[in-house]
Amino acid sequence: MEPQTIAYEKGIVRLLDQTRLPLEEKYLDCRSVDELIDAIRRLVVRGAPAIGVAAAYGVVLAVDRGIAAAAGSPRKDLPAAIESLRAARPTAVNLGWALDRMARLLDQGEADGSALRAALLAEAEAIHEEDRDLCRRMGEHGAKLLPDRATVLIPCNTGFLATGGMGTALAVVYTAHAQGKQIRVFADETRPLLQGARLTAWELERAGIEVHLLADGAAGWLLATQKIDAVFIGGDRIAGNGDVANKIGSYPLAVLARRHGVPFYVVAPYSTLDRSLEDGSQIAIELRDPSEVHHALGQRLAPEGVGGYNPAFDVTPAELVSGIITEQGVFRAPYRRAFAAAYGG
Amino acid sequence: MEPQTIAYEKGIVRLLDQTRLPLEEKYLDCRSVDELIDAIRRLVVRGAPAIGVAAAYGVVLAVDRGIAAAAGSPRKDLPAAIESLRAARPTAVNLGWALDRMARLLDQGEADGSALRAALLAEAEAIHEEDRDLCRRMGEHGAKLLPDRATVLIPCNTGFLATGGMGTALAVVYTAHAQGKQIRVFADETRPLLQGARLTAWELERAGIEVHLLADGAAGWLLATQKIDAVFIGGDRIAGNGDVANKIGSYPLAVLARRHGVPFYVVAPYSTLDRSLEDGSQIAIELRDPSEVHHALGQRLAPEGVGGYNPAFDVTPAELVSGIITEQGVFRAPYRRAFAAAYGG
Repeated sequence: MEPQTIAYEKGIVRLLDQTRLPLEEKYLDCRSVDELIDAIRRLVVRGAPAIGVAAAYGVVLAVDRGIAAAAGSPRKDLPAAIESLRAARPTAVNLGWALDRMARLLDQGEADGSALRAALLAEAEAIHEEDRDLCRRMGEHGAKLLPDRATVLIPCNTGFLATGGMGTALAVVYTAHAQGKQIRVFADETRPLLQGARLTAWELERAGIEVHLLADGAAGWLLATQKIDAVFIGGDRIAGNGDVANKIGSYPLAVLARRHGVPFYVVAPYSTLDRSLEDGSQIAIELRDPSEVHHALGQRLAPEGVGGYNPAFDVTPAELVSGIITEQGVFRAPYRRAFAAAYGG
Repeated sequence: MEPQTIAYEKGIVRLLDQTRLPLEEKYLDCRSVDELIDAIRRLVVRGAPAIGVAAAYGVVLAVDRGIAAAAGSPRKDLPAAIESLRAARPTAVNLGWALDRMARLLDQGEADGSALRAALLAEAEAIHEEDRDLCRRMGEHGAKLLPDRATVLIPCNTGFLATGGMGTALAVVYTAHAQGKQIRVFADETRPLLQGARLTAWELERAGIEVHLLADGAAGWLLATQKIDAVFIGGDRIAGNGDVANKIGSYPLAVLARRHGVPFYVVAPYSTLDRSLEDGSQIAIELRDPSEVHHALGQRLAPEGVGGYNPAFDVTPAELVSGIITEQGVFRAPYRRAFAAAYGG
């Protein structure tokens, strides 16, 4: 059974609380935009596509509130709600992409009230459903790259918990597995928040797929000494030239994969492309609270009084990326030209 | 005040229990070789030079026991005790080096009993005192490489807790700091056992030296985006050609440092050289229990039933090493020739 990462019902956005996995499977109900923003900031829901889906439902929460308040127009507060949601996290572009789709309905001007609400809910559900389909298609394109008995290295979490569907990089694994291929996954634990250890291991173990956790620092020795068929990562924002912002630690994997002749693939839907950016130097990298590095699952590791450096993402230059797998297929460098051929512009 | 990492007194090897730092400062008393071997395996004491010192005192524990038992010769059980100590951990050569020094006294044949005990204790204390001196000298050579206001990146723990003295890589920092230079340290936390977060941060905070912790996966972005003057690591075994076995995660740092033009130095005393080995491919790499990757400070992170990959060390090829700093100075490639010029052979 698939994890129910995000659901909307009757004025509630229900999130599987990813800060508590794998020790507890609890759900968090968000009844307001502020509660949802807090959940996005705390990584109750995370993963670029999943954040986009959650934010879209957040706009429905805002119109629900507006209707309930009944004081004038429920439309009035929506632009502010959309901008608050947009600011919740800076790096993943899918957040802004989903909110732009929701905002377009406001401009197109359904009347206030229930018709507007119905239109916004339908659009949020369409974004969610579309993401399921994008995941399926990325999985199919990526699985063609994997032989039977393949061994892959994957950091962070890029599966059901990171998207509205079966994932980005993990969709490749799920699809190959469903095709009857035997796939072995080495999962970087991905400090500081351990999305690999907590979330990817949890997903793959549920799915009956062989998974081996490793410390992030052990990936170099793994690539140097064992046969790894490919590294797959997701993406949070991909610049026009193919530079990829993704979870911190992705860039070192790309450097090491290149050194050892291992293909390095990015798996992300078109909503992760930000072709308005020339290259990765224009991507804002979120610096999170250093206390995340001083702790693991809430337990203090380091003495009081020490500093910390905690960027949530890094940027992998396009020259280190063997291919970018979207719902349209496997793109190869030069990426700007390849994106234009598929997506226009 | 310096941490009392290892002390011997009246039939007891007293170890500062490094598995409990920084949350607790407790000492563990070892009264037998078996207790000491268990402590070495559990990393109550760790760091290649420190393991060598502890093992030397372990031979004194064995002769103490033999005398106490009073049944025949205390010398009789010493060869077996030495071999058990030697097998406690495979990668650090300093362990075997110290035990070889102790074994030589047996061959040279002091009489049994108190004269033998006195000779062994004197040798263990000499190894300990020599290590203090080696640390001071490595620190002086290394500090010449650091300007005022230098920023360095250092993984694992390579200080008072890793040696009989002030450290290897951290001796460079301590010495530069004592010379009045302002040094800023970025410390890789070094999963799975977090020697950077727990031990290096603790040492540097006590010493009043600015330290910033980072997740191991963040080192690539740090090197790509901030001015880092040098990376310093310790060493567990250095082959004749200059290949260096050191804490897992060292090799990726070397690859990244090279890519960003940052010097990468190894700091280790002559007891870490193993010139009997042609190159690093001959170094045995310790694979530790995968449960270390499933936990942090004893707290479970990952779901039950998942695998793990947990090499304790990796090997950095000599071509990525800018210099090897020993008590004799800063060695540059080709290392075999440089070692021969300084150490003969």
